[in-house]
Amino acid sequence: MPQGVPDNVPNDGLTTRQRRNTPVLAVHTGDGKGKSTAAFGMAMRAWNAGLSVGVFQFVKSAKWRVGEESAMLALGELHDSTGKGAPVEWHKMGQGWSWLRANAGEADDHAAAAAAGWAEIKRRLTEQTHDFYVLDEFTYPLDWGWVDTGDVVETMAARPGRQHVVITGRRAPQALVEAADLVTEMRKIAHPMDQGRKGQKGIEW
Amino acid sequence: MPQGVPDNVPNDGLTTRQRRNTPVLAVHTGDGKGKSTAAFGMAMRAWNAGLSVGVFQFVKSAKWRVGEESAMLALGELHDSTGKGAPVEWHKMGQGWSWLRANAGEADDHAAAAAAGWAEIKRRLTEQTHDFYVLDEFTYPLDWGWVDTGDVVETMAARPGRQHVVITGRRAPQALVEAADLVTEMRKIAHPMDQGRKGQKGIEW
Repeated sequence: MPQGVPDNVPNDGLTTRQRRNTPVLAVHTGDGKGKSTAAFGMAMRAWNAGLSVGVFQFVKSAKWRVGEESAMLALGELHDSTGKGAPVEWHKMGQGWSWLRANAGEADDHAAAAAAGWAEIKRRLTEQTHDFYVLDEFTYPLDWGWVDTGDVVETMAARPGRQHVVITGRRAPQALVEAADLVTEMRKIAHPMDQGRKGQKGIEW
Repeated sequence: MPQGVPDNVPNDGLTTRQRRNTPVLAVHTGDGKGKSTAAFGMAMRAWNAGLSVGVFQFVKSAKWRVGEESAMLALGELHDSTGKGAPVEWHKMGQGWSWLRANAGEADDHAAAAAAGWAEIKRRLTEQTHDFYVLDEFTYPLDWGWVDTGDVVETMAARPGRQHVVITGRRAPQALVEAADLVTEMRKIAHPMDQGRKGQKGIEW
């Protein structure tokens, strides 16, 4: 599938190569599992292709996704020591964004923390800091109005260079879905939680 | 969500801990992206939790998922050199299964190669070789009748110890879906291929 022939070729004046090199804006939404996990799987692939990775988690709990964080940071360290792959940065709102450590008290105001996270990502997109961004659970601040969806859509459309962005979370705003190149809905068909199981280390986090 | 309170608690005589420790059989199906990518994201998390990982790719092309393979094997090497994480093995039908190297000519017979792959996985499940298995694109040999779905369902139900298994691919047979603890359907909402783009390195593979 990835290397197949496109279903149709648009009359947009671009060569196949130009279209191929267009940076991707992807959205993983829906009520099912795998939205973030697939984003981190993509990050692993990007790392292998030498694309620098920046992960920004818009979640409260510092425990969330600790397994992926630790594995991705191990890949980043492998880059630092051997040159293989690419650098990896991982930032969490739940602990107060690392660049805001001095103002850690701010972390109690989630709306302000989310806005600060987005402001930093905008700066990084302008400066082309990373090649591959994961904005994990970023749909929630959009859904709650803490971050303006119109601003996000405009920023994404205007981002320079070849910066790929993956946004995850339920209830992705329609304007974001329409702006994205790739939208996947993860639908729950069956889940152990329905049978009274709680999550387990190595599987759920 | 993973660490939340279950929606309901079954009257099955098990403690929460016993239910929590039940090995998971997960299926990622549907026509959308992210089925394999989410499985490899889970494998990365499993690696971090110290669960040994075995990946078995039931696909023809050796190029498929080369990014994830390289990154996962880098994590496996990191384990070998530092003790962090867990061992990783990655086997591909497309190159002839590694344990069948002597019979590489067999790789032209895909039905036989798929059956040989499943026979090996059965052996490994009996011997508890790995803690976390990814049977990537395994639904296709099931769908085509190369591997018997009933045998797979019985083998999974009888597998000893705490071996987690994730099976990916479109058209998962109904009996497999019913046997699984966790089934997610990845639905395509939008995809760059629809706009005439071809896949690109670091993003699609």
